[in-house]
Amino acid sequence: MSQQKFDQLREQLAEISDLVKTAALLGWDQHVMMPPGGASLRAEQLATVGRIAHQKFTSAKMGKLIDGLRSWGEQRDYDSFEASLIRVAALDWEKASKVPSELRAEMSRSAALANPVWVDARKRNDFAAFLPVLRKNLDLRKRYIDCFEVDDEPYDIVLDDYERGMKTKEVRGIFDYLKEHQAPLVKEVAARGGNAEHHHNFALEPQKVFELEVIRAFGFTDEAWRLDPTVHPFASGTGITDIRITTRYFSEHFGGLFGTMHEFGHGLYERQVDPALERSPLARGVSLGLHESQSRMWENLVGRSLPFWRHFFPRLQELFPDELGGYDDERWYREVNAVEPSLIRVEADEATYNLHIILRFELEQAMLAGEFPLEQLPEEWNRRMWDYLGIEVRNDTLGVLQDVHWSGGSIGYFPTYALGNLISAQIWEKITADLPDLHDGFEQGEFGPLRDWLREHLHRHGRKFTPGETLERVVGTSQIDPEPYVRYLREKLAAIYGIATTT
Amino acid sequence: MSQQKFDQLREQLAEISDLVKTAALLGWDQHVMMPPGGASLRAEQLATVGRIAHQKFTSAKMGKLIDGLRSWGEQRDYDSFEASLIRVAALDWEKASKVPSELRAEMSRSAALANPVWVDARKRNDFAAFLPVLRKNLDLRKRYIDCFEVDDEPYDIVLDDYERGMKTKEVRGIFDYLKEHQAPLVKEVAARGGNAEHHHNFALEPQKVFELEVIRAFGFTDEAWRLDPTVHPFASGTGITDIRITTRYFSEHFGGLFGTMHEFGHGLYERQVDPALERSPLARGVSLGLHESQSRMWENLVGRSLPFWRHFFPRLQELFPDELGGYDDERWYREVNAVEPSLIRVEADEATYNLHIILRFELEQAMLAGEFPLEQLPEEWNRRMWDYLGIEVRNDTLGVLQDVHWSGGSIGYFPTYALGNLISAQIWEKITADLPDLHDGFEQGEFGPLRDWLREHLHRHGRKFTPGETLERVVGTSQIDPEPYVRYLREKLAAIYGIATTT
Repeated sequence: MSQQKFDQLREQLAEISDLVKTAALLGWDQHVMMPPGGASLRAEQLATVGRIAHQKFTSAKMGKLIDGLRSWGEQRDYDSFEASLIRVAALDWEKASKVPSELRAEMSRSAALANPVWVDARKRNDFAAFLPVLRKNLDLRKRYIDCFEVDDEPYDIVLDDYERGMKTKEVRGIFDYLKEHQAPLVKEVAARGGNAEHHHNFALEPQKVFELEVIRAFGFTDEAWRLDPTVHPFASGTGITDIRITTRYFSEHFGGLFGTMHEFGHGLYERQVDPALERSPLARGVSLGLHESQSRMWENLVGRSLPFWRHFFPRLQELFPDELGGYDDERWYREVNAVEPSLIRVEADEATYNLHIILRFELEQAMLAGEFPLEQLPEEWNRRMWDYLGIEVRNDTLGVLQDVHWSGGSIGYFPTYALGNLISAQIWEKITADLPDLHDGFEQGEFGPLRDWLREHLHRHGRKFTPGETLERVVGTSQIDPEPYVRYLREKLAAIYGIATTT
Repeated sequence: MSQQKFDQLREQLAEISDLVKTAALLGWDQHVMMPPGGASLRAEQLATVGRIAHQKFTSAKMGKLIDGLRSWGEQRDYDSFEASLIRVAALDWEKASKVPSELRAEMSRSAALANPVWVDARKRNDFAAFLPVLRKNLDLRKRYIDCFEVDDEPYDIVLDDYERGMKTKEVRGIFDYLKEHQAPLVKEVAARGGNAEHHHNFALEPQKVFELEVIRAFGFTDEAWRLDPTVHPFASGTGITDIRITTRYFSEHFGGLFGTMHEFGHGLYERQVDPALERSPLARGVSLGLHESQSRMWENLVGRSLPFWRHFFPRLQELFPDELGGYDDERWYREVNAVEPSLIRVEADEATYNLHIILRFELEQAMLAGEFPLEQLPEEWNRRMWDYLGIEVRNDTLGVLQDVHWSGGSIGYFPTYALGNLISAQIWEKITADLPDLHDGFEQGEFGPLRDWLREHLHRHGRKFTPGETLERVVGTSQIDPEPYVRYLREKLAAIYGIATTT
């Protein structure tokens, strides 16, 4: 009887999963393929599919079905598909059913409509043009928060959407640690004297060739992946066997490559979820923090490592003989690890990146609390850029308009980037202990052992456990710990810049 | 009260329209963008979205809503949006509600699963590999027919899906006329001596450049269109302002260009529907026959006309100086109008094309009636190719496996191609009477007047009227008349081959 009810739940969740993945395709297509004329209609389509998925999931009937299965699920092995599905569905239902479908639809419609406005405002450096849609998104986000009981801080509600169970004050504590221990690193490096300015001109076609070679070595295949150009890189897809990553290319530097490796890391997490979880709400990465740990790992701990470049630099040099004629792998390694405060988050180096996040984390809380008129946002942004990074923002395109998130209504998302950085170092300490030959493998172009380790210890679980439980399975503790990241950073910068290895 | 009910109907149909267009995107992406690994999951997504759209539309509640509005609608102007929407929704509901949602979902799942099987079987010339999915599609189609009361012939049911109101015996009558009057033309041309063999080698890149120049002159814009390469060309999109056409390229001949102009014709019909009809079931071409009249018009009556090439040939010659050095526009015009029985329908010339259709029309009826074991289909195909066109089919890739339709379960679709040819000539006689300067305009690269005429007389109506009513508004009669097409063909071939201008 209960097995039958479970099958019913599974089938209904599979249908909802189809709708969620369909919405993902509508979104991917909107950013990558859609002619601009399709924008307003696409907003309706996204709203409709989102609303139907939400209505189906939050129905009282669904709540009853889940409720009726709780004790049956609890009798089963905690790790089992059945127990995990019931547990996660119950938690999801509890949160989702508090939000009216109409508000959900309005949020997704508003996000879709805001996107082209943002693209255009960013292109034209016109914050005033973006302001009305930002205001609308923010108002919707406040209405969303109002659907819940706030125990501690309103920001907890939106943060929980991306990092279930995480509290604003925990994040604040972690960020305070970073302000105390990471920010000084940037100053120590600065004291060692500036980086040489590098004026490159990398042709785009060989860049594309090289990027594909790199991610193919990582595990990208034409069978199950796509790579396309877009304005703002992201990872998406319609399932475990259809992973889509996007990127962009610059001629002045190799930021495009690091962005591609970053999105590869996201894609690989989705790609290596246990196929038995497909068409269920368990078939994706457990949280954005864990997700970001994967993207940052492939971008930085792999892609900005010396062993990686020992293998790949000769090929890079072959493709860019003029630009890189006077280089060797170590000089190139130092260049791609240069620490220098800069304007754009996605291009920021490992030492300054988290400071970009802290700025956004603080601004988001201030916006939700209405601490300043929204017109003033660029000034607030620019002031903090000066305070935290010591640089002046020349225009809003390079400032407050740079990120896609707020145009999509994603408030509460940014902190997960910094948390991901920290988690990546926690996991890396575990991996390098488990796989002593890892770096030797990188020097041979071998990334399979890392991929397999990640599948086994993290990826395959999908969303079966909470973020804390998942982290505990991977590293032995459920707590995000900033120390390994700061340790990793200090050691790396000590080798490059000659700063002290300990404070 | 009734206005309120109408608004309710409109909103519910808008939601369904969003789902239908979303399914169109899932399909477009499947054929154009999706990594092969996504196939089985995509089948589920298509089935789910299709099932939900069908369930929502065929619900008893929807039936009651439509029923309650009938008399209110009848009191309004026949041409009005309100009256048309109620009328069309009532007819659609009557047909759709007879089909269980599960069967619908099964049909769309089966079609999605069959697609990669067909692509592969076609590539490997392996009919046996395609047979099981064809059998499955055919069985589903029979179950579909069983949902209806058959008045006359079972084929009527499927034909009506693509050409509402058309009967199998009408089509048979029209095709008999073609056998009597069009087939002899092919023989007369053959008696005049064969065409010279042309061995070309057209580089693909300049072909792409040229194609884009042509369709941009026709009305393609980046704002509202996409053009992508695919295995089998088709037209799709997510709405009036997001039109997507696909094409393929050959080096031996310019068939790709004519395919692109063909799909442009389909796209333009959708593009020029009155925007006020968007997000309703009225916002698309009224039938496949009318649709095909538009694609064939741009492909043949425009793209294979001498005035068109008077304008475009110099540019073509500039792009292919080696291949076309010894040509002038008239020689090229004769070459692209060469009449010669050939294997591939989409590459067939205007004189032989309809014979390819007659073959498929007969085979489909025979398959539905189970007149031969399905294993025998290639032989049946090949025998008729010999009987009707006098050519031998060397392999199934060039024979029974060439078209996408049966892999998608589309049985009853093919006749609309031939009907479209006939309608295109009916409309053309009207256009050339209304616009005496049309051909002079073509010679100047001016296609705006044709585009505008089509919008005004045909496109803008969308699906407001029946196919017969629509045709009557365009040409003054609701009957499809094969005479103008045969007349057009005989005159054209008389000029090129010197056959008699009358029988």
